[in-house]
Amino acid sequence: MYQTLKSSLQELKDNKLFELLVITVIIISALEIGAKTFELPHTALSITGILDIFITVFFLFEITIRFVADEDKKNFFRKGWNIFDSIVVAVSLIPINDSEMALLARLVRVFRVLRMVSVVPELRVLINSLIKALPQLGYVVLLMFIIFYIYAAVGSFIFKDINPTLWGDIAISMLTLFRIMTFEDWTDIQYETMEVYPLSWIFYLTFIFFTAFAFLNMVIGIVVNVMEEEHRSAKAEKEPTLKELQDELREIKALLAQRDS
Amino acid sequence: MYQTLKSSLQELKDNKLFELLVITVIIISALEIGAKTFELPHTALSITGILDIFITVFFLFEITIRFVADEDKKNFFRKGWNIFDSIVVAVSLIPINDSEMALLARLVRVFRVLRMVSVVPELRVLINSLIKALPQLGYVVLLMFIIFYIYAAVGSFIFKDINPTLWGDIAISMLTLFRIMTFEDWTDIQYETMEVYPLSWIFYLTFIFFTAFAFLNMVIGIVVNVMEEEHRSAKAEKEPTLKELQDELREIKALLAQRDS
Amino acid sequence: MYQTLKSSLQELKDNKLFELLVITVIIISALEIGAKTFELPHTALSITGILDIFITVFFLFEITIRFVADEDKKNFFRKGWNIFDSIVVAVSLIPINDSEMALLARLVRVFRVLRMVSVVPELRVLINSLIKALPQLGYVVLLMFIIFYIYAAVGSFIFKDINPTLWGDIAISMLTLFRIMTFEDWTDIQYETMEVYPLSWIFYLTFIFFTAFAFLNMVIGIVVNVMEEEHRSAKAEKEPTLKELQDELREIKALLAQRDS
Amino acid sequence: MYQTLKSSLQELKDNKLFELLVITVIIISALEIGAKTFELPHTALSITGILDIFITVFFLFEITIRFVADEDKKNFFRKGWNIFDSIVVAVSLIPINDSEMALLARLVRVFRVLRMVSVVPELRVLINSLIKALPQLGYVVLLMFIIFYIYAAVGSFIFKDINPTLWGDIAISMLTLFRIMTFEDWTDIQYETMEVYPLSWIFYLTFIFFTAFAFLNMVIGIVVNVMEEEHRSAKAEKEPTLKELQDELREIKALLAQRDS
Repeated sequence: MYQTLKSSLQELKDNKLFELLVITVIIISALEIGAKTFELPHTALSITGILDIFITVFFLFEITIRFVADEDKKNFFRKGWNIFDSIVVAVSLIPINDSEMALLARLVRVFRVLRMVSVVPELRVLINSLIKALPQLGYVVLLMFIIFYIYAAVGSFIFKDINPTLWGDIAISMLTLFRIMTFEDWTDIQYETMEVYPLSWIFYLTFIFFTAFAFLNMVIGIVVNVMEEEHRSAKAEKEPTLKELQDELREIKALLAQRDS
Repeated sequence: MYQTLKSSLQELKDNKLFELLVITVIIISALEIGAKTFELPHTALSITGILDIFITVFFLFEITIRFVADEDKKNFFRKGWNIFDSIVVAVSLIPINDSEMALLARLVRVFRVLRMVSVVPELRVLINSLIKALPQLGYVVLLMFIIFYIYAAVGSFIFKDINPTLWGDIAISMLTLFRIMTFEDWTDIQYETMEVYPLSWIFYLTFIFFTAFAFLNMVIGIVVNVMEEEHRSAKAEKEPTLKELQDELREIKALLAQRDS
Repeated sequence: MYQTLKSSLQELKDNKLFELLVITVIIISALEIGAKTFELPHTALSITGILDIFITVFFLFEITIRFVADEDKKNFFRKGWNIFDSIVVAVSLIPINDSEMALLARLVRVFRVLRMVSVVPELRVLINSLIKALPQLGYVVLLMFIIFYIYAAVGSFIFKDINPTLWGDIAISMLTLFRIMTFEDWTDIQYETMEVYPLSWIFYLTFIFFTAFAFLNMVIGIVVNVMEEEHRSAKAEKEPTLKELQDELREIKALLAQRDS
Repeated sequence: MYQTLKSSLQELKDNKLFELLVITVIIISALEIGAKTFELPHTALSITGILDIFITVFFLFEITIRFVADEDKKNFFRKGWNIFDSIVVAVSLIPINDSEMALLARLVRVFRVLRMVSVVPELRVLINSLIKALPQLGYVVLLMFIIFYIYAAVGSFIFKDINPTLWGDIAISMLTLFRIMTFEDWTDIQYETMEVYPLSWIFYLTFIFFTAFAFLNMVIGIVVNVMEEEHRSAKAEKEPTLKELQDELREIKALLAQRDS
């Protein structure tokens, strides 16, 4: 009997209509979250309360189906997306009444919108490919961090007394440097320190050049990676290499030469 | 007799000089619109009034020619550019005297300049290729929207009381986030919330990283798409694949082997 | 005798040392221009006066050599760089004493620095390739101009009364739109108009999207152009196409088949 | 005996654990530098003092090992990274007590963090490839400098009296132009000069266009360089060219034709 239930649930899970229903519920939950940021009349508030319970129950129901229908229950919680879904559902179930915690409860519900990514396969593929691209960029990111760290330390040592809110310690300095990297009012910071140290424009210009160069390198790295992957997938279609063609040509020549003798 | 008219109109439509005349009238109409934004003497105003009527009549005349000369009248209004042209001409014909509506009438006339795109074939190709590229970017745009929506909801929940003009509801928050994405005075917003929540820089930095990453992905996606299309069009020139060459080589080898036996 | 002079001048013109001397004089002239922007003591001013005369005479001397040494004197003034050099030298020769014109004289001397581009061959190649790339971008630039023109007309019609210094007429509006395109304090402009027309954010957001999209298209267009040129130059090295290889293979098969019969 | 010491030190140098230890000490030295930017209690200060001595001794010890273990001592100081390491260690050894020099001592210690780059091989490769890419960009950088120089001279001549803090001399003007290139409050500068010279927007717009175009060219140049290098490294894997395949095909045809006769 359990087997019958399981196979019928599996059918339900793979049903296009069911998938559409799940997406619809996620969209409704997203709209509800959006609506709550506006000033709502009392009746609307009670409706969102009921909606909230309904969505929580539906998500609990959906993840149960997915778990029961799964062939390989041991590995169910090894898949990142399943863990993510379960945590979001589990946290929604905790009853929270305290006003302080109410904000936290709201924030957890916001993450339900991220379930959109775990349900739509195309988005899941997109996120996976983004995550896969990250480690290849590891060393450029490390280099950028070293640049930030050194400039933040130097900036903090030299400019601390000029403006402690910008250069107070190394953490604040790194935030200030990120601001400079986005070109956001960076000349105000520069003019302020140039009044004390007229040569401090060297600090800002070299920082901008180094980070711009490292950033450019990162972008080019990603582009080259993407193209190489395209190339590799083209090769996987069993296209022979030119080397292989050459080998076959040599075999033919050997065949011809052999018969001549 | 209708047939004679039709073919003579067709000749007129395809005439290079006629096309040039249409472009000239569109440019005059554009210049007239531009001139109207300046303070004009009374005589100039009456001239623009006459010009206006002339341009409207000319456009009506031109679209009539195009319609009569068309072979397949049933599908005439199925082509996007024809519909666009007809609407622009039709709306220009509505007589508007009310001062409130006068602004609307002016705006409609501005869209006449867009007829430049529907007349110059190269621009039409450009726009068509842009529109064709959009659906391929669909999922990245959706992902970006989800990022915006989640951050706007979180920002609205947490920062609402700090600055309601920036974080009042989810719609205003999304506009504020777009401003942050363009790096426009984003640190002012950040410093304001950091006074209440010192860790709120995490909110801004992660948002900037996520959107920058998604944007980069979009750009790379477009580049790869464009290159694949180039590649495909190169293949369409009946270039054989390496696989096909290999197959031919194997046939030759089989021929040679067969004769040896 | 003229022939002897001509050939000896030709030798001088092609001499590496002479080229180096010309570059040195240009650099000195550039440094002199830079020095003049500082407050100079009286003695230094008289030195720059003498330097000025020397440089003018040297440039006159150099262009005369180039003209005399040229084989094809009729076409000498058909080459863009020669015309540019001659004009710069000619204008330097006009004696200017009036204080109003003194500024103009200074500006003309600034353009002498551009002679650096006409003398160093690598820079000339760079500029030529930039100029060659421009016409291919023509239609994207035209499209961008149409977008600017329409938005400037609309902005001028609607926002004129809100802030005439930003939206006074179509010319000022286009400058304001360029400012918005560079994201420079664009939200200040937006918030100002949103107080009167709360939906005017649509105007700004659509404008930013359209121009960003057109700009992206332009960049990708340049990249694809550059790569196609690379590809074409690779083909010019007499690499056979895959099609040609296939044809040769078929000839071999035909040879084999023919002998079997 | 020296030989035994040398080989055992060589083993130590190549030991993975030793490398990890060096990296750990560098990270500790980086953290110490970061910690010093915060207000520290007295006990923590004395700890950093001891740490400082320990790190200096460790680095001295490590570079001695590397020098003794090196096979080719004559060329040890010809490698850029070795020189860099030695200078950093040597400067750390100079005892500095004067308060003025204390800042300098701190700055030198900051550069110890850069030793991270000289120790991690992947970062060294990254930096080397960046440095190798620079000369290829030489002429675009030179062109950009000429653009900056000319605009700075013109700006300084015309706008000097309007705002001497922005356009005082050619050096300040170049800094101002760099600010304009980063779009940082550039319209403020523009509006200021437009009050005196209404056409000065031409100065700013042409400058932005030229630098944007040169910058774009630089980026594309890097991308094309990277791709060509990829291409070349692919060729180095002994892939035959299509030309070589064609030559082999012709040999086969010649063999077949020869036997027919």
